[in-house]
Amino acid sequence: MAQGLTGRGLGEFGRIRQFFAPLAGPGGLGLTDDAALLECPPGHRLVITVDAMVAGVHYLPDDPPDLVARKLLRVNLSDLAAMGARPRHYLLTTALPVAFGDDWVERFASGLAADQREFGVALLGGDSVATPGPATFSLTAIGEVVAGGEVRRAGAKPGDRVWVSGTIGDAYLGLAVLRGGHAGLDPAARAMLIGRFQLPEPRTLLGPRLVGIAHAMCDVSDGLLADLGHICEASGVGATVSLPALPVSAAARQILAGDPGLAARLATGGDDYELLFAAPPAADEAIGRLSAELRLPIATVGTIGPGDGVRLLDEAGREIRVDSTGWRHF
Amino acid sequence: MAQGLTGRGLGEFGRIRQFFAPLAGPGGLGLTDDAALLECPPGHRLVITVDAMVAGVHYLPDDPPDLVARKLLRVNLSDLAAMGARPRHYLLTTALPVAFGDDWVERFASGLAADQREFGVALLGGDSVATPGPATFSLTAIGEVVAGGEVRRAGAKPGDRVWVSGTIGDAYLGLAVLRGGHAGLDPAARAMLIGRFQLPEPRTLLGPRLVGIAHAMCDVSDGLLADLGHICEASGVGATVSLPALPVSAAARQILAGDPGLAARLATGGDDYELLFAAPPAADEAIGRLSAELRLPIATVGTIGPGDGVRLLDEAGREIRVDSTGWRHF
Repeated sequence: MAQGLTGRGLGEFGRIRQFFAPLAGPGGLGLTDDAALLECPPGHRLVITVDAMVAGVHYLPDDPPDLVARKLLRVNLSDLAAMGARPRHYLLTTALPVAFGDDWVERFASGLAADQREFGVALLGGDSVATPGPATFSLTAIGEVVAGGEVRRAGAKPGDRVWVSGTIGDAYLGLAVLRGGHAGLDPAARAMLIGRFQLPEPRTLLGPRLVGIAHAMCDVSDGLLADLGHICEASGVGATVSLPALPVSAAARQILAGDPGLAARLATGGDDYELLFAAPPAADEAIGRLSAELRLPIATVGTIGPGDGVRLLDEAGREIRVDSTGWRHF
Repeated sequence: MAQGLTGRGLGEFGRIRQFFAPLAGPGGLGLTDDAALLECPPGHRLVITVDAMVAGVHYLPDDPPDLVARKLLRVNLSDLAAMGARPRHYLLTTALPVAFGDDWVERFASGLAADQREFGVALLGGDSVATPGPATFSLTAIGEVVAGGEVRRAGAKPGDRVWVSGTIGDAYLGLAVLRGGHAGLDPAARAMLIGRFQLPEPRTLLGPRLVGIAHAMCDVSDGLLADLGHICEASGVGATVSLPALPVSAAARQILAGDPGLAARLATGGDDYELLFAAPPAADEAIGRLSAELRLPIATVGTIGPGDGVRLLDEAGREIRVDSTGWRHF
């Protein structure tokens, strides 16, 4: 793996040795080879995904480096969970401004170390280069799923219920708080919302448990309505979502009390990294048991039907027009 | 995989659908899922690597987009070859300035399509985001090697010969030509050297054939001396390299005739993407046969010995001091 412009301090090789090599798993070969080795357990398939983040586009430039690293890892783990896969490895590319010191890289790596412990993943390899532009990251994550068990976006059937884990809209509101919005909110609620934006909780335990239960699944990154639209398009079906059924946090509820019109925005805000899936009514009980066992709310928010597209309904069953069904970076 | 800021024209989703989805292999699921599926043939291991490129750092901003794409892919295939692996798949992250039009992306994708055919690889997935900085790319490449057959950097033994494929220093000289240097050189030679910088030839056929022959291997990306240093460090050995034994092209020879002092720079220039390996003398004949079969020169340039570090010797066997053993980006 080619090395880039030497930054201040340790330089690329020194930084790799000091901060990243300790994160390497067995196949990573100490990050000293041209490539890493990757084994697949018999009867399994590997699942692989990649996501990028750019300072000022996907996170605020002064977000703490350890949280930037953890978010970068977690958004990828969320993609693996959405296929029903258990996370195992990752590879990392960093393109950093030369002005970034070793301390920044050390804090970034400490975030990775914390999440490696939390999610049971290890570093396989990477590349570090210098950039005259903003800090830019790309992370490739690899997981395992029993062959044939993978849950795709295609597969939703008319009559399925639409389910979503956790709460929706917190990250959208958290970003608004970070930018000075919702100033009247109490400090604990503000901190919770910011945390949901800066440090999503990928549903790595739930995803693999939905193998054999969910007909179709994806994670909520573009926005619940847009992502459900992806499931519908891939499955050749349509869906309705009941806005009042949307699971929202107590903090979001506080904000909605003062601005009810915001509710539909939460369904399009994105960056939630919850799991959104379609399952037949016969799975209600299994999903309820899973929710209890994992202590994770899982709410039914709509239904799959024939046709195409996603319609958002109010409490009277009237359709709500949404100006944007997708998430746009700030 | 989250989508980024919409560029001009087709937008992210449109570009993925039009330019990248046609590049997707079977496991890529049409690029419409959260992640891709990756199978490993029984008895094999997957080999995985990632390399990044930044406009103005790793290539000249006005390099043709199709060549940028192909170089990005090829430097990664070179890493796979250096482990003895056959290339199979890749994932791609692009961070592009919003001003880049669909035409640029189309030409970039056409370069990938050409190299997919040439090297028998297919796209598995990716992420496209916008950046206010220079165009930045990260490519993850995946290959296969018979389990246990992988060739590492560690494994070189005293008494081994040091071999290198192709010619060394052309890319270093090609970059100089692109920047206006060596103006007296004839046009065909200039074009050849530029081609070696912009479009390296990863030794994807040679690498897998060296399984069971090479004790240790890497590709020449940082510079022959630096990369041999990596093999020595990993193997716990030292090496000597004979400068007159360095295989150079006819074009490089023209330049060296007018500036003999440049010879040592070719051994440190980097970006060659040739294979550098250590093999016992008993392998001479097998290597000769491989060279003839693949119509690829493979030259012995030095020997492995006890100790550590790499010494460069002139024709009289005197050590040459080199100011830098590594490649620095322009």
